Amino acid sequence: MDKSTQYKIFNDPIHGFITVPKGLILDLVDHPYIQRLRRIKQMGLGYLVFPAAEHSRFSHALGAMELAQRTLNNLREKDTTISPAEYEATLIAVLLHDVGHGPLSHTLEFDLIEDFHHEKMTLAVMRHLNRETNGKLDLAIKIFTDQYPKKPFLNQLISSQLDIDRLDYLKRDSAFTNVYEGSVGIERILKTMRVLKGNIVIEKKGIYAIENYILARRLMYMQVYLHKTVLSADKLVRQIFDRVRKLINDEKKLYHASPALQYFLENKPSAKKDIKSEVMQKYLQLDDNDVFQSIKYWQYSSDPILANLCKRFQSRKLFRTTFLDKKPSKKIKKKVLTKTQKVLKKRGLPYDEESAGYFYSFDESYSEAYQYEKEGIWILEEKDNAVEFSKAADTKNIIALTEPVVKPYVVHLKDIEL
Amino acid sequence: MDKSTQYKIFNDPIHGFITVPKGLILDLVDHPYIQRLRRIKQMGLGYLVFPAAEHSRFSHALGAMELAQRTLNNLREKDTTISPAEYEATLIAVLLHDVGHGPLSHTLEFDLIEDFHHEKMTLAVMRHLNRETNGKLDLAIKIFTDQYPKKPFLNQLISSQLDIDRLDYLKRDSAFTNVYEGSVGIERILKTMRVLKGNIVIEKKGIYAIENYILARRLMYMQVYLHKTVLSADKLVRQIFDRVRKLINDEKKLYHASPALQYFLENKPSAKKDIKSEVMQKYLQLDDNDVFQSIKYWQYSSDPILANLCKRFQSRKLFRTTFLDKKPSKKIKKKVLTKTQKVLKKRGLPYDEESAGYFYSFDESYSEAYQYEKEGIWILEEKDNAVEFSKAADTKNIIALTEPVVKPYVVHLKDIEL
Amino acid sequence: MDKSTQYKIFNDPIHGFITVPKGLILDLVDHPYIQRLRRIKQMGLGYLVFPAAEHSRFSHALGAMELAQRTLNNLREKDTTISPAEYEATLIAVLLHDVGHGPLSHTLEFDLIEDFHHEKMTLAVMRHLNRETNGKLDLAIKIFTDQYPKKPFLNQLISSQLDIDRLDYLKRDSAFTNVYEGSVGIERILKTMRVLKGNIVIEKKGIYAIENYILARRLMYMQVYLHKTVLSADKLVRQIFDRVRKLINDEKKLYHASPALQYFLENKPSAKKDIKSEVMQKYLQLDDNDVFQSIKYWQYSSDPILANLCKRFQSRKLFRTTFLDKKPSKKIKKKVLTKTQKVLKKRGLPYDEESAGYFYSFDESYSEAYQYEKEGIWILEEKDNAVEFSKAADTKNIIALTEPVVKPYVVHLKDIEL
Amino acid sequence: MDKSTQYKIFNDPIHGFITVPKGLILDLVDHPYIQRLRRIKQMGLGYLVFPAAEHSRFSHALGAMELAQRTLNNLREKDTTISPAEYEATLIAVLLHDVGHGPLSHTLEFDLIEDFHHEKMTLAVMRHLNRETNGKLDLAIKIFTDQYPKKPFLNQLISSQLDIDRLDYLKRDSAFTNVYEGSVGIERILKTMRVLKGNIVIEKKGIYAIENYILARRLMYMQVYLHKTVLSADKLVRQIFDRVRKLINDEKKLYHASPALQYFLENKPSAKKDIKSEVMQKYLQLDDNDVFQSIKYWQYSSDPILANLCKRFQSRKLFRTTFLDKKPSKKIKKKVLTKTQKVLKKRGLPYDEESAGYFYSFDESYSEAYQYEKEGIWILEEKDNAVEFSKAADTKNIIALTEPVVKPYVVHLKDIEL
Repeated sequence: MDKSTQYKIFNDPIHGFITVPKGLILDLVDHPYIQRLRRIKQMGLGYLVFPAAEHSRFSHALGAMELAQRTLNNLREKDTTISPAEYEATLIAVLLHDVGHGPLSHTLEFDLIEDFHHEKMTLAVMRHLNRETNGKLDLAIKIFTDQYPKKPFLNQLISSQLDIDRLDYLKRDSAFTNVYEGSVGIERILKTMRVLKGNIVIEKKGIYAIENYILARRLMYMQVYLHKTVLSADKLVRQIFDRVRKLINDEKKLYHASPALQYFLENKPSAKKDIKSEVMQKYLQLDDNDVFQSIKYWQYSSDPILANLCKRFQSRKLFRTTFLDKKPSKKIKKKVLTKTQKVLKKRGLPYDEESAGYFYSFDESYSEAYQYEKEGIWILEEKDNAVEFSKAADTKNIIALTEPVVKPYVVHLKDIEL
Repeated sequence: MDKSTQYKIFNDPIHGFITVPKGLILDLVDHPYIQRLRRIKQMGLGYLVFPAAEHSRFSHALGAMELAQRTLNNLREKDTTISPAEYEATLIAVLLHDVGHGPLSHTLEFDLIEDFHHEKMTLAVMRHLNRETNGKLDLAIKIFTDQYPKKPFLNQLISSQLDIDRLDYLKRDSAFTNVYEGSVGIERILKTMRVLKGNIVIEKKGIYAIENYILARRLMYMQVYLHKTVLSADKLVRQIFDRVRKLINDEKKLYHASPALQYFLENKPSAKKDIKSEVMQKYLQLDDNDVFQSIKYWQYSSDPILANLCKRFQSRKLFRTTFLDKKPSKKIKKKVLTKTQKVLKKRGLPYDEESAGYFYSFDESYSEAYQYEKEGIWILEEKDNAVEFSKAADTKNIIALTEPVVKPYVVHLKDIEL
Repeated sequence: MDKSTQYKIFNDPIHGFITVPKGLILDLVDHPYIQRLRRIKQMGLGYLVFPAAEHSRFSHALGAMELAQRTLNNLREKDTTISPAEYEATLIAVLLHDVGHGPLSHTLEFDLIEDFHHEKMTLAVMRHLNRETNGKLDLAIKIFTDQYPKKPFLNQLISSQLDIDRLDYLKRDSAFTNVYEGSVGIERILKTMRVLKGNIVIEKKGIYAIENYILARRLMYMQVYLHKTVLSADKLVRQIFDRVRKLINDEKKLYHASPALQYFLENKPSAKKDIKSEVMQKYLQLDDNDVFQSIKYWQYSSDPILANLCKRFQSRKLFRTTFLDKKPSKKIKKKVLTKTQKVLKKRGLPYDEESAGYFYSFDESYSEAYQYEKEGIWILEEKDNAVEFSKAADTKNIIALTEPVVKPYVVHLKDIEL
Repeated sequence: MDKSTQYKIFNDPIHGFITVPKGLILDLVDHPYIQRLRRIKQMGLGYLVFPAAEHSRFSHALGAMELAQRTLNNLREKDTTISPAEYEATLIAVLLHDVGHGPLSHTLEFDLIEDFHHEKMTLAVMRHLNRETNGKLDLAIKIFTDQYPKKPFLNQLISSQLDIDRLDYLKRDSAFTNVYEGSVGIERILKTMRVLKGNIVIEKKGIYAIENYILARRLMYMQVYLHKTVLSADKLVRQIFDRVRKLINDEKKLYHASPALQYFLENKPSAKKDIKSEVMQKYLQLDDNDVFQSIKYWQYSSDPILANLCKRFQSRKLFRTTFLDKKPSKKIKKKVLTKTQKVLKKRGLPYDEESAGYFYSFDESYSEAYQYEKEGIWILEEKDNAVEFSKAADTKNIIALTEPVVKPYVVHLKDIEL
């Protein structure tokens, strides 16, 4: 049988050809819930610093699914049994792993629904799709939730210190941001993966590719994901949403927003227990455009604070980020408040403490390139004997570089000096 | 003086570092009118076929401006005098050359304003910005409108058979679509450009880079810009807008759309004479998101035709495109109508002739890789003697490949056979 | 069984990982006859113009073999039966297709053995290796010599208008020379290849990749393989060898050369009939180094002509190439002779007609991007119906660009004007 | 004046266009001493493991010179004064920095001349060229030897922990070996270099590019330069030369070698004091080909040991390298000797202790990614305040990774088990 008629080929600047199996998987790709990911940028507001980083979670999802295929094919070559059903289920789990992301991904992750985490929503969506397809996603959900003890490595491909998600996004994000230092030799990593006693391990000759991968991830956090201007843009959007919610609470007045966004602003539902079907349905109507459209029209709000914040966003007049040596003292907090108030007053904006609070914010950034204490990456030093990466002979010292990096910072008006 | 403090650097996957001079040019980059281009995709609906082709006109504008700098620097090296004012004005003209594009660029270009062409709007915006900056764009406008007879080559860099716009978009679009055949060796082209008697010419050793550029452009039209599925997606969106306008005309009922989009749907202003300030202001509130948001909510319209068309778009159930050997006969037109009606009837959709008309469309695609009869590209065969590319010794035969390609086609429901 | 233990992986900048099956094929790769190709540059003297074009026929042979594997795997996916024996034999034929090349490949191809063609030697070597391996190359030889009527497409992969040899060398040579215009999208070509009635055809969607391939080949000839300076370097080396042979004939005196090279210079054996075993053995001792070493020491020859020519080579003081509008007239030939003699006289070098003849040469370059009249490339327009590329609907005009290009030229001293 | 006529452009796969100023620098490029570098591979025997790593020191020298131009141009932009004479001298010093390398570079560095170091020879050659050009290299020599206290940064560009030599070879070697992990973002490094009080420093925003550079260098040593098979090939060639010298000493018999190589084999001159002119002249006649040609013919030597070693080399039957946990004990040395003797005896080869010594070797590999104690790389943390890289806030931990790595190993016959 001619297998080339059994898949559809997409073009991708990162991986070349992406092969999507026809049938269930192609149907899922075309499903409005997955198509919606085309309207959610992979790097959130990162495009404000890296202008070409406009790629979506959809192209990332396709890319990751392609890598999953290559990985599973490699593992099969190395004599690991993977049934057609397991193969398909893994691809589905990878394809859908981000389907629960909301507008601007992490920026607003905790602002629309209480006790939210995008993985909760992902699972809710997967279950919904499972019902729609009469249970065809049963195995995918088992693998995704690590309820498939027969082959733990399948879950590890989806979520671990060395999962396919990371491989695709590091490669993709570093390419689109032109941050060479974040680039990763995924071919070599895929080529040296194998399964030992049900778990993913890396053959010894791949150890330096792993070292490079961990350090590349560290550099992407330092240079891109936690870039000062990205941090400040994130804060600005969150302040906008805080302000809108405040206005809604105070006045119950309607602000131009899409119906779905309005729903969340007015209700802020909770995800403490299960996500209700209505909440999920509304959520899946949201994408980045709801936010961007709203901000565009909120520029003309009669509320001077909201209007000011939104105009800043539209003309890229962002706040400045200043890193602090240590956790901020009361004194510095007071200083920033006072200086902010002075500027606002001069500009004829409300400058009471609460109002001023929309124009600065203290926070800390956090990154951790590799968590060896939890799951870790395992290196096959000899036949049947794997050691955790940080304990492998040639890379012991690397652990020093993978300590969590915590940096306190303050986001503030550009016209105030710290 | 330290020149490195005089510009800001952006990262770009296509050109590496992009250098934006501080002052007027950086201010323009940050202006909401140019920032708006971030929300207009360079390739319109092309992303539906090439999933990573999600890049915006903003990154293209930055990229083109960078190429303009490299070109002008090269020309200066070759002893062409370009004053600082001319240099800046050219950069501005390149940066702004697409600022008049509307949502989805060419897809809806003629649907929102009568007698429109995006260059008319670009000029209106440039004039507006010129007033805002007290005349700082005077020279840029002269160059853009070819009213600078002193140095015609500056306009040629902006608009000709070999302009910087094309160099950037071919390189960029071919990279993001992974269509290798459309890639162009721009370095060599820039390196072999020089000015002869006020006009751009290409040194002889660049002739094969030009041949490759023309053929790459041809291939991009054939493989990407006029791809069957892109044609059909374009039609679908235009049918959606036709339907909405019809509904508005009939019923004066409000359909969920952004205020700015509503303005154009209800009024369809004209650009026959000058573009009025109000029209421009409204227009500059529009971007791709207005369209995508509207279609998202129009899915739930009570009009079954509109709802059906929008649902198709959201779940990528596009029409099929079939190319025809010749202009369509009455017979084939009748056939498509009848078959379409049959399908619609079966599905419980309105199937009168007018209604059926939303589900198919006849048209023809057109492309022309190189227009030698108009301006042409000139090759410097000997000192002070340039010949038009198609007459140069080594490439005479290329003309055969650059004849306009006209292909009639019909876009139709996938379930009908032609 | 773990297939990953059955091959050895090499790294390649062009194709990434190259997978060499252990056993017969890896043994052949390590055989001194194939290892010898490491010492023969793929592009002959091209490195004198393109300094990084130093790659060998060995890396090309490995690259081509890798492409053969990918091609055969693709064809198998499309339901073409290829037995393990056929698979291995094709790989061997591709690996060995250039094994008969001599020092500097084409430069000296006809100077060491009379009636020579490198394919004759390739076949002789294959037969020798076949005996060494007790007939394990039987099938490879059949395929190589097109004596395998059961599956003609296997031979077409080795030698046709679209063979794997060309795909690898175009990609490789354009990369190493940095001639972007010669680059080819081989992935798309491989992906759209299939077998129809025993022959290779290209699916319709690959037609523009083919157009691009043919034009890229044309541009590589124009810009690289027949580059003026490459032509002149070629002539210089051939003049050196003419001179050496003349000196040997005259004086029977020994000039420093390696034993193997000496053998050919003194005897100039013939390949009119079969290549004798002794000739083959001697031939396989030769590589580029024999030539380079000899020229290095011939600089100190007592013969002033030989010394001069060799010093030119060592310090890159090459001749100049001038293209002529038409075949050279007697007049121009006389003119070049006279002017050359004048210069030689001034420099105290022998300047009789025969001596002067070593310092210039008339010739013509020839290239043909695509020979549609012979075998051609076939495009699968509809199921079971293939048309030759130049007759396919969308590319008819391309033929104009593929006419043979013949350019008369003269190579001469830089100090004479034509 | 048209500056584009003042340089010649070469194409390079790594840096694109390489611009060589006409006049003194182009003359030097064409000088036989520099052209000789075309015949010395940059990575010595590395091509035996990485088949495409066939690039020469010549293309590296050109590439480094191009990077020097870009660096100096950047520094000038940042307001560092560099006179035309200093500019040219720096380019020359970079171009010539490797001119003293001998055949196979490091492999035989200490085998042909006693007390040798290639930098001694480089200096001798530079002085010779200086005499030839009547002192035009005076300044280049001063800069090369760090005798130009006015601008120490010029010497730092040539030789330091972050010199241009390293930037080019890391980029080039990682590309040709397809070892992605060794790739370096040189554009960012060059862009963030500046001069502070006469020394090179890196702007703070370049710190992660530096981190990446140091770790890439570490990985290139681990994966490429000290690759097991490279170590074993190096040993094999050195054993061959040891044997030849022994044979010459014993018997004074002539073995086929080029005249220049013979000179060194018979005399082994010393470089303890100055390098004599005759020695330099002879040395500059040597290149890789002398070694490869000799080994090719030594296969047929009547000495069974030499013949065996050379045949191994020609058919890539190299020794095996085994890394040891610690410095080898007497016991293991004895064991290897005994086992080797057993194998040799079985094969009918001489197996006395001395003879056996040619078939194994104990040694240790050494690498150090970054030497902060010596010169170090300095990061500009604030205006006018630079700190050494390992003390910069964000990268303190990196030092752990840059400790020297010393690994004892033994190279031995593949048929013996350790």
